[in-house]
Amino acid sequence: MERKGNLMTYRPDIKVFDATIRDGGLVNSFRFSDEFVKALYLANLRAGVDYMEFGYLASTDIFKEEDFGDWKFCKEASLRRIMGNNETDMKIAVMADVGRCNLERDLLPKEESVIDMVRIATYIHTMPAAIEMIEYCHSLGYETTCNIMAVSKANTADIEVALEMLCDSSVDVIYLVDSYGSLFPEQIQRLTKLYLEHAEASGKKVGMHAHNNQQLAFANTIEACSMGASYLDATIGSMGRGAGNCAMELLLGFLKNPKYNITPVLKFYEDYILKLREQGEVWGYDIQYLLTGKMNLHPSSAIAFTADKRTDYAEFYHSIFDMEA
Amino acid sequence: MERKGNLMTYRPDIKVFDATIRDGGLVNSFRFSDEFVKALYLANLRAGVDYMEFGYLASTDIFKEEDFGDWKFCKEASLRRIMGNNETDMKIAVMADVGRCNLERDLLPKEESVIDMVRIATYIHTMPAAIEMIEYCHSLGYETTCNIMAVSKANTADIEVALEMLCDSSVDVIYLVDSYGSLFPEQIQRLTKLYLEHAEASGKKVGMHAHNNQQLAFANTIEACSMGASYLDATIGSMGRGAGNCAMELLLGFLKNPKYNITPVLKFYEDYILKLREQGEVWGYDIQYLLTGKMNLHPSSAIAFTADKRTDYAEFYHSIFDMEA
Repeated sequence: MERKGNLMTYRPDIKVFDATIRDGGLVNSFRFSDEFVKALYLANLRAGVDYMEFGYLASTDIFKEEDFGDWKFCKEASLRRIMGNNETDMKIAVMADVGRCNLERDLLPKEESVIDMVRIATYIHTMPAAIEMIEYCHSLGYETTCNIMAVSKANTADIEVALEMLCDSSVDVIYLVDSYGSLFPEQIQRLTKLYLEHAEASGKKVGMHAHNNQQLAFANTIEACSMGASYLDATIGSMGRGAGNCAMELLLGFLKNPKYNITPVLKFYEDYILKLREQGEVWGYDIQYLLTGKMNLHPSSAIAFTADKRTDYAEFYHSIFDMEA
Repeated sequence: MERKGNLMTYRPDIKVFDATIRDGGLVNSFRFSDEFVKALYLANLRAGVDYMEFGYLASTDIFKEEDFGDWKFCKEASLRRIMGNNETDMKIAVMADVGRCNLERDLLPKEESVIDMVRIATYIHTMPAAIEMIEYCHSLGYETTCNIMAVSKANTADIEVALEMLCDSSVDVIYLVDSYGSLFPEQIQRLTKLYLEHAEASGKKVGMHAHNNQQLAFANTIEACSMGASYLDATIGSMGRGAGNCAMELLLGFLKNPKYNITPVLKFYEDYILKLREQGEVWGYDIQYLLTGKMNLHPSSAIAFTADKRTDYAEFYHSIFDMEA
């Protein structure tokens, strides 16, 4: 299989996508201080990051505002409090989960919003609802991605149907998402190739969103990249649900485009990420996440094991054998 | 490039090699309790591990015995205290560094020793001395490997000469060693192919020893494996110098041979590895190791940064720019 690009040059089509607030918000219920979010916005700008995702467009009909920080809802006023009118070339993204938002009420027309891109997260069986949301976002003037979750549990034939549906839609980027951190680089290679075969034929791009259950988030991201994926998700310090994501500092250390600069990310890490850890927030690779990843399971049981401060890994391993695989 | 084997089956030529005491000993100056080492020996036996490495055959002319635990020297009496006559099918290995041992004095003939394999660690410029040691070990009846260190700083033409020298020797296994944790899977793929082209033509095997500076130790190990490397080094909990090694629990979670069993490794991790961490031993992936890996530098400056409990990563990054790359 032919790789695109090599280790000495760079591909200008690559976009670095920071998901620290969105995926990291799953760790602390989106309760980030404004100081944190503003410092991250500036760090991303200085680092040359192409897109920064702020959080979810969750509906207040479904989630109580008092249970979460602002970035669960990403109201226009919250976003502008951080970035004014975002007079920069870094684009702003938010995520919308199928069945958990009210876009008709909550999403402004693009010309009234600092948001540039809406990422539609869907399971494969809710693809028609995702397509409807994608078309609605485009009708308002937004860029979109579709993030098909949990493909490690889907059949290739179903994935192909989903890709065909997306290729007939207005979506800009189709994301390969390793929700359970269960995929190995060889599988990422095959899936990226499959996604690209469909995407390229209809002028769309492919993105990669990895999880670090088996310490493969960075390896899988650069594998997808070298096969031709161009939108690459990362979070500073890997902050994200469970085992976390591809670390921004690893990704920027790898990419050769001189526009990227790792130093602001290192500075943000030492000034802000370390503080979150000191305050007791817990995420990142650990044995329990390796085990749910290996078993291709949702990380919820491993997250509960972590919250309970358990360390009986062997017992945990045997307990998850009984789960629906 | 063709892969050997696939993700559904297993290759019987694969040997899992536990280096926990040897590489982990670089963390605590080899001061492991006998209880720890005996429990590890039993865990490896139960897990189906093929080789267990105990430590170095360091010369007491060069190193003072009071500065280290027993596994710096691996005397026959120390080994037998743990395993008796090792009446098992797990083989026992030790490492001998070029220029740091006195094999004529310290290595018994094979029939008087529980050691099965001597691994000769060498830089590329000391290959003639390594070959002499390999031939001496074979004359005493041992299996051998040659671990060529720091190849990320060597020129391909020199690596090829070294491989030719080894192919003309009695060595059994040639190890690809990513000493600085600086190699990406694409490079591991190319190097494994190069090593195998030489090794296969002369009936030798290829091994992989990875470091986790860029969270790629496991990814690089399975990449080398899928290209045809058959001796795979790992340590429980990644215990090893600096960023540590490929984690045994990740490797056994990946391999499909039913002889391997992850549970004894999980149990050892919870009973013994966690305790070492509680006692203050520090190793494993962290930003400073990512930075020396990215810069293709020996991890010594990152190890000092860790020992000093520093967290000014951005400053550290700029300080290593001046180092010899």
